[in-house]
Amino acid sequence: MELELKVRMDRLRKARPLVHHITNYVTVNDCANITLAAGASPVMADDPKEAADMTAIAQALVLNLGTLNERTVSSMLASGRKAREIGIPVVFDPVGCGAVPFRTAAARTIMETVRPSVVRGNISEIGSLCGLTARTNGVDASSADEALDAAGVARAAALRWGCVAAVTGAEDIVTDGVRTLAIDNGCAAMARVTGTGCMCTSVTAAFCGADPAHLLESAAAGLIFMGLCGEIAWAQAGGRGLGSFHTALFDAAGQMDGETLERGANYHEA
Amino acid sequence: MELELKVRMDRLRKARPLVHHITNYVTVNDCANITLAAGASPVMADDPKEAADMTAIAQALVLNLGTLNERTVSSMLASGRKAREIGIPVVFDPVGCGAVPFRTAAARTIMETVRPSVVRGNISEIGSLCGLTARTNGVDASSADEALDAAGVARAAALRWGCVAAVTGAEDIVTDGVRTLAIDNGCAAMARVTGTGCMCTSVTAAFCGADPAHLLESAAAGLIFMGLCGEIAWAQAGGRGLGSFHTALFDAAGQMDGETLERGANYHEA
Amino acid sequence: MELELKVRMDRLRKARPLVHHITNYVTVNDCANITLAAGASPVMADDPKEAADMTAIAQALVLNLGTLNERTVSSMLASGRKAREIGIPVVFDPVGCGAVPFRTAAARTIMETVRPSVVRGNISEIGSLCGLTARTNGVDASSADEALDAAGVARAAALRWGCVAAVTGAEDIVTDGVRTLAIDNGCAAMARVTGTGCMCTSVTAAFCGADPAHLLESAAAGLIFMGLCGEIAWAQAGGRGLGSFHTALFDAAGQMDGETLERGANYHEA
Repeated sequence: MELELKVRMDRLRKARPLVHHITNYVTVNDCANITLAAGASPVMADDPKEAADMTAIAQALVLNLGTLNERTVSSMLASGRKAREIGIPVVFDPVGCGAVPFRTAAARTIMETVRPSVVRGNISEIGSLCGLTARTNGVDASSADEALDAAGVARAAALRWGCVAAVTGAEDIVTDGVRTLAIDNGCAAMARVTGTGCMCTSVTAAFCGADPAHLLESAAAGLIFMGLCGEIAWAQAGGRGLGSFHTALFDAAGQMDGETLERGANYHEA
Repeated sequence: MELELKVRMDRLRKARPLVHHITNYVTVNDCANITLAAGASPVMADDPKEAADMTAIAQALVLNLGTLNERTVSSMLASGRKAREIGIPVVFDPVGCGAVPFRTAAARTIMETVRPSVVRGNISEIGSLCGLTARTNGVDASSADEALDAAGVARAAALRWGCVAAVTGAEDIVTDGVRTLAIDNGCAAMARVTGTGCMCTSVTAAFCGADPAHLLESAAAGLIFMGLCGEIAWAQAGGRGLGSFHTALFDAAGQMDGETLERGANYHEA
Repeated sequence: MELELKVRMDRLRKARPLVHHITNYVTVNDCANITLAAGASPVMADDPKEAADMTAIAQALVLNLGTLNERTVSSMLASGRKAREIGIPVVFDPVGCGAVPFRTAAARTIMETVRPSVVRGNISEIGSLCGLTARTNGVDASSADEALDAAGVARAAALRWGCVAAVTGAEDIVTDGVRTLAIDNGCAAMARVTGTGCMCTSVTAAFCGADPAHLLESAAAGLIFMGLCGEIAWAQAGGRGLGSFHTALFDAAGQMDGETLERGANYHEA
């Protein structure tokens, strides 16, 4: 399977897609900055009175459950429907799905109503979309779930919901149910900085917005981009600590180019 | 026109005005930190039950539309009225005005009801307050609008609304409709970090809070302060990348002093 | 009084408590990152439909009034009651209490209804819980209040509300009303970065979650941890400025170990 990462990176930088986010207030600044650094343009708007209108002028939509509430879930549904209507990709991050009933139900409603193009989460979150996993530990995968076969869970979600599914963790899996890639980019420190998962979702949406006809390849590019930023940032600043590593993620994202992405990608079919 | 930047900077540090913000959740942390680094004291309170009371003990008010919703717009109106009643400056940032109808209407309502002392935005946002521009591209100026005469648009807004208007971009313009300054501080990387516009608004409010009798000069000082922070941060950290540059903005803001501001200012009448 | 800081630090890292936060959108990213860096797992969920359920799977609860609104106050009350029911510690940060009536009333309601295990704030905030102080200056202590006896105010709050009370400032005080410690860790720059108080509350909750049977010792450990991070960060990066210092706080938090905490602690009975 050919990801054409160089072409894909150049296309994103040139297309500069507008990526509408309805997302959480914990990691939203990082999501905006990683979207900018990757070469796209972020916009955040979550009121029911304008969310769908903002989606209508965007090239991709991120729905992120991080700090959902009834008002924003309603905006997510309206924006999601608008996105499907105008044919732009919807990338869904079911943060904390499986931890508490309201969140799990909201995630299921979004899956059923919006039918996202891509869904990305940890194994507990993605598994719980198919009833395959135990309880999510807040926004982290539970250790019981971490013992499961990530590729199997991702494929089940992709087939159940007719979407591209990405399960991220020590190794990342991305699949459309038929073709499956395992990605080994990334580093352990990414789990010790909040928002690296959310940022991965945002970057994935940026790549999808620049090439909506190739969602699996675009999603894979997003995962590789984020993982490689983690590796570069760790090499650059890991020795100084987590704060410096966090800052260096954006250094790496802004300086990423097609050659570096192509050369640094570490994946295989699974 | 004499800006007295050294005096102005010293006065801000000494007065330490309390700057009440009703602002977005994307860039709010950066707004609080730049306000602190500039020498003022930020406070954020957006519930209708307390917003106007918080304004009543402040020396300046920031209204920023970034992630507006019906609840916060109502607080903005109440706080704005309180600010006018007690005579403290209101600095308005119509983020995304011109992108979607709800946002444009909210901005117009705030202009009409509150009559802000200063309004700051990109050319699409400020132009759309006067019906002069095409559609805003999310929170960015559209390329069609960027071809317009910024000084003309700023002057039109200042005269139409009886306020100081600032249009920021590659060159910044600030005017009260009669006296107009063009400011050439700043650097290209500022457009690649989210929130540099919002931060500029916050710093402007800090300067206005310290000298409400000189709004044009205070607004100019805010734009110059922010632009100069960008230049210093770029020289210090630009080579490392966008994350390091972002961090260095706060380094520069905290270390800014009157002499540096005076010496680094780069503006002319326009 | 023996704090057993080394044992306490190791226990936190091993227990990795889930710390549920209902907190403000200004400093929430920093709260999540300091919680992670300290070794705990943060989760933020504030909708009334799920807040208490999230508390039910957590080991500690943070209630932070920073950008309170009617919806989140209702979630705070429900989560607080759930926390008391299941016996996990509640750490309360009455941000801005004493500045405006709505905030003061909300803080009092939380004190009365939830009966937090630990309360932490500046002297104006803690004093206003007992009617002892003048008006809070936004989210900062007023200079009038700073002249008061912090240990006396903290003890009054602890006795009045039957909790551990911490008053942080140039010197930090923590007391259960009988035993009182004065902590001299920290540095002046911490007051020039937003959120160092909120982060202190989060870290305190992490320590309390890891050892709910020793709330005074755990709270003291949280204050010492945060203050020592400030000292280390200042030594490391203070010369570069406030942005670099802010980043270095997370470097220090992630690299903190039991020996360093024990060796760096600077406190005495008061």
